[in-house]
Amino acid sequence: MYLENITGPEDVKKLSLEQLQSLAGEMREALFHRLTHTGGHFGPNFGVVEMTIAMHYVFESPKDKFVFDVSHQTYPHKMLTGRAYGYLDENRFHEISGYSEPSESDHDIFTIGHTSTSVSLATGLAKGRDAAGKTGNVIAVIGDGSLSGGEALEGLDYAGEMNSNLIIVVNDNEQSIAEIHGGLYKNLTELRESNGTASNNLFRAMGLDYVYVEEGNDIEKLIAAFEQVKDIDHPVVLHIHTQKGKGYELAETNREDWHWCMPFDRETGKPTMTFEGEDYGSLSGELILDKMAKDKSVVFVTAAVPGSVGFPKENRDKAGEQYIDVGIAEEQAVAMCSGIAKNGGKPIFGTNATFIQRTYDQYSHDVCINQSPVTTILNYTSVWGLNDVTHLGIYTISMLSNIPNLIYMAPTNKEEYLVMLDWSIEQQEHPVIISMPGNGVIGAKYPVAASYDDVHTYQMCEQGEEVAVLALGDFFQMGQEAVSEIEKKIGKKVTLINPRYASGLDEKMLESLKKDHRVVVTLEDGILDGGFGQRVASYYGASDMKVLNFGLKNDFYDRYDAAKLLEENHLTKDLIAEDVCAILQK
Amino acid sequence: MYLENITGPEDVKKLSLEQLQSLAGEMREALFHRLTHTGGHFGPNFGVVEMTIAMHYVFESPKDKFVFDVSHQTYPHKMLTGRAYGYLDENRFHEISGYSEPSESDHDIFTIGHTSTSVSLATGLAKGRDAAGKTGNVIAVIGDGSLSGGEALEGLDYAGEMNSNLIIVVNDNEQSIAEIHGGLYKNLTELRESNGTASNNLFRAMGLDYVYVEEGNDIEKLIAAFEQVKDIDHPVVLHIHTQKGKGYELAETNREDWHWCMPFDRETGKPTMTFEGEDYGSLSGELILDKMAKDKSVVFVTAAVPGSVGFPKENRDKAGEQYIDVGIAEEQAVAMCSGIAKNGGKPIFGTNATFIQRTYDQYSHDVCINQSPVTTILNYTSVWGLNDVTHLGIYTISMLSNIPNLIYMAPTNKEEYLVMLDWSIEQQEHPVIISMPGNGVIGAKYPVAASYDDVHTYQMCEQGEEVAVLALGDFFQMGQEAVSEIEKKIGKKVTLINPRYASGLDEKMLESLKKDHRVVVTLEDGILDGGFGQRVASYYGASDMKVLNFGLKNDFYDRYDAAKLLEENHLTKDLIAEDVCAILQK
Repeated sequence: MYLENITGPEDVKKLSLEQLQSLAGEMREALFHRLTHTGGHFGPNFGVVEMTIAMHYVFESPKDKFVFDVSHQTYPHKMLTGRAYGYLDENRFHEISGYSEPSESDHDIFTIGHTSTSVSLATGLAKGRDAAGKTGNVIAVIGDGSLSGGEALEGLDYAGEMNSNLIIVVNDNEQSIAEIHGGLYKNLTELRESNGTASNNLFRAMGLDYVYVEEGNDIEKLIAAFEQVKDIDHPVVLHIHTQKGKGYELAETNREDWHWCMPFDRETGKPTMTFEGEDYGSLSGELILDKMAKDKSVVFVTAAVPGSVGFPKENRDKAGEQYIDVGIAEEQAVAMCSGIAKNGGKPIFGTNATFIQRTYDQYSHDVCINQSPVTTILNYTSVWGLNDVTHLGIYTISMLSNIPNLIYMAPTNKEEYLVMLDWSIEQQEHPVIISMPGNGVIGAKYPVAASYDDVHTYQMCEQGEEVAVLALGDFFQMGQEAVSEIEKKIGKKVTLINPRYASGLDEKMLESLKKDHRVVVTLEDGILDGGFGQRVASYYGASDMKVLNFGLKNDFYDRYDAAKLLEENHLTKDLIAEDVCAILQK
Repeated sequence: MYLENITGPEDVKKLSLEQLQSLAGEMREALFHRLTHTGGHFGPNFGVVEMTIAMHYVFESPKDKFVFDVSHQTYPHKMLTGRAYGYLDENRFHEISGYSEPSESDHDIFTIGHTSTSVSLATGLAKGRDAAGKTGNVIAVIGDGSLSGGEALEGLDYAGEMNSNLIIVVNDNEQSIAEIHGGLYKNLTELRESNGTASNNLFRAMGLDYVYVEEGNDIEKLIAAFEQVKDIDHPVVLHIHTQKGKGYELAETNREDWHWCMPFDRETGKPTMTFEGEDYGSLSGELILDKMAKDKSVVFVTAAVPGSVGFPKENRDKAGEQYIDVGIAEEQAVAMCSGIAKNGGKPIFGTNATFIQRTYDQYSHDVCINQSPVTTILNYTSVWGLNDVTHLGIYTISMLSNIPNLIYMAPTNKEEYLVMLDWSIEQQEHPVIISMPGNGVIGAKYPVAASYDDVHTYQMCEQGEEVAVLALGDFFQMGQEAVSEIEKKIGKKVTLINPRYASGLDEKMLESLKKDHRVVVTLEDGILDGGFGQRVASYYGASDMKVLNFGLKNDFYDRYDAAKLLEENHLTKDLIAEDVCAILQK
């Protein structure tokens, strides 16, 4: 047993080749141990065990600096840098995040969770090193799936004119999350098939030196390759052919399903936890496929995360040419949708909220200035969504709802979501964002509008007095409960409003509330700053109306407990009711 | 005279080659006529006269759809699509914008002003065409300077797997705004020098077909080239070598200075309008150069707009290796700065506010989650800045000030700007944005802090009662004037506060105002939604304090008159005072 005794890279360097090979086997066992219990990124980690061993064998981390793209493939790196316990000891799994994390170790330079950033970050480390008169290698590790992202391509292009040490490891496992997309993958194939000798070479065309390594899971070959480029005096691409999911047959053969896994049974590969029932992804897929069958101009676009937004393989097959995966290239996806809309198509873009951060400019410049009727559906906008600090969706309202011309719809239930989506696809006037509720698929309690042509009008659900609760999106049900609590406390019927839109204001309804209400409460599933509630507070600023905004304090949160975070922010029916009553009693 | 009689592309098609050549001469005269009077983009338009003639000769716009990248090179296109009057008739210059604009003509498909978008938009037009069962060519025209942008590279990569008509014209004039940067330009050079035959080819490596045209200012050759690719059934790159500024010797030899021009005298090339005095760009350049001389770890980064942020050629030469232009690649710039900061360097990024829109994700993910001490200076954040709808900076506070950990500083005068910049470069705790005031270089009236370590604390400039005016950034002077007006009207001393930060709140000071103030007024140079004032309104929402937020209504504005827009938004001392008094009298 070697792994348990590895306290850092210096212990890796002491091992013989044979011992390193045993170590690789132990590391895969440790990966199984953790992943069968907790789930996580499977394929990316199983593929880079040997590469990571060779890197730590050859380089001197942390003086030499590794930047792992997306960093979902850093489990082996963590094991070799003093954190093996996070994979060996069930009681300590929670101490280790699923991404690189400087607070855990000096061997992690950045917190990283988005793709396509490693080359740019590494060019900076190299430039900082040179400017500060330091030494050491800088090594970026980027997967082939991440290469299509604009930031990565900008980084490669810039690296192509640098003139000091920078090593860019292209970990080519022939796969993104789903299948890879984009013309550059033809070139990667050409390079693999020619053992790196093809005269046409994307990396050389970007001005970079280039070395190819076919045996990307052979420790000896990898050590030789890293030794060849160590201390190089200019940027070089080391193109390494690895096998995603190596060491588990199911994962080797079904790479999309095993990119990320739930806790599972090793013998059968079956998940040991399952979610039953409907989800907004599959509801979206159904509705869109139905539309596609009737209307060839309906086109669904995603940027490498089809599974999150209703397009698993069987739906992609059904959609045929009406389905487009641009690969990891959100800017391309959004701008392309604007073009589709301007030439007779009905585009729908679907992705996870955290990745929409890459497209502020495309929404503003390419879509909204041009009033292109692009529909976007976003998963994981909610506090109940992904909870790694790099993957939060709670900034989405703040970021997008203030872009002029953009209609941001926040449905409160299943029926409303589906009608909004249908309406948005068919209308030809507005760019529209629709967030999928994060609190499960809940049925409508109040009637759902037949059309949303009259944008930025709220729905009066319960007409009361004294207090009005404007409960946006998937906080609507919390608003309903808070209304009951407040009613109990004050003995009056309280107004409940479904604002339906995170953008804009229904000034007519807001104005009407002044007559017989003293307090307006807003609830929104996101940070308060720049959001819906602050707009309402500003609207009433000069009036006698008291406004209480409920939402999340503006901060980065990592692997939080949603219930606890909500409570800290007074986002429970009881705390809301208490705060409202405190105001009423003033 | 042919130009005056051209009402649309059909009139171009009627001319002989010799007549087209005369037309080119007339078009250059028309460009001179407009540009000597109004200024504008010089080099880009003089370079593409022949190419534009050939495009309209061969293709059938608007059925065939042209998408011009940045679209600052569309003056010849406008002349040939019924808008020659905008170049021939002084009285009608103002009717025609400097960018492509659908409201002017069906031959313009999109409003465009940012670079690197054309290929993505064109892929969308092509996909829309196919989905809707339409026909026609789609032609993107992209300059070599725009190729380094992530959106363009994502677009090329995606185009590389399309299988229907798309023509990407790469207008290669060997120049960005300043010199070109990035490794891919080595490949463009190789391609030009080999007459397009070099075996290593960026475009082919992206999976694209490729045709080279050396004589990019020869109408006959261009017509032949366009005829060759017209109606092609797959994407193709037509790489055309043109001469930027062709037809004016000064512009041919000094391509950076003549990228854009002020109104000028044709004989001498001297501008007929000049701005005297200091500007924030040159003040920044001076301070940064001074720091660089003393500290080799100080690094200034720009993304192709050095002139806007204090780095004209002479300063770049002085800065040497401490100056980096990444080319048009803002994502790379910001992420690289994070890397520089994490490895001993002191990075400063400078650009125009409108281009920072491309980097929301890089600020959030690469910089702010990682708490990297990156300083950013932004020009043209103001209502008094660039006023084309595609280049507005008035959304910057709304976009950036709500990203956690990001300190957004809004200086009110010269001394304060310089101390903030100095402080930010030296501190090691925070990512910092500093906006350059847009109301000219004004001296400090109140003492300037020696340090800003205590972030998010406001400056009490005048302690009064009843009304407090929080006047942010370059609206501070308007706030001062408004205070005087209010004082005249109410006969009491009014409080004036310099908030100094568009991010965060000084809750201590805000709380203290509750004691003897009834109205808080906020002023900010930007849209109200998602901004500083709404945060203040929310803070006071549950209290008796009345809050009046002054700023711009959230909308897209095009070529507006700043004074008029300010007045419409009650942003004059008199209107502010009136609104405040109306509240006090309630």
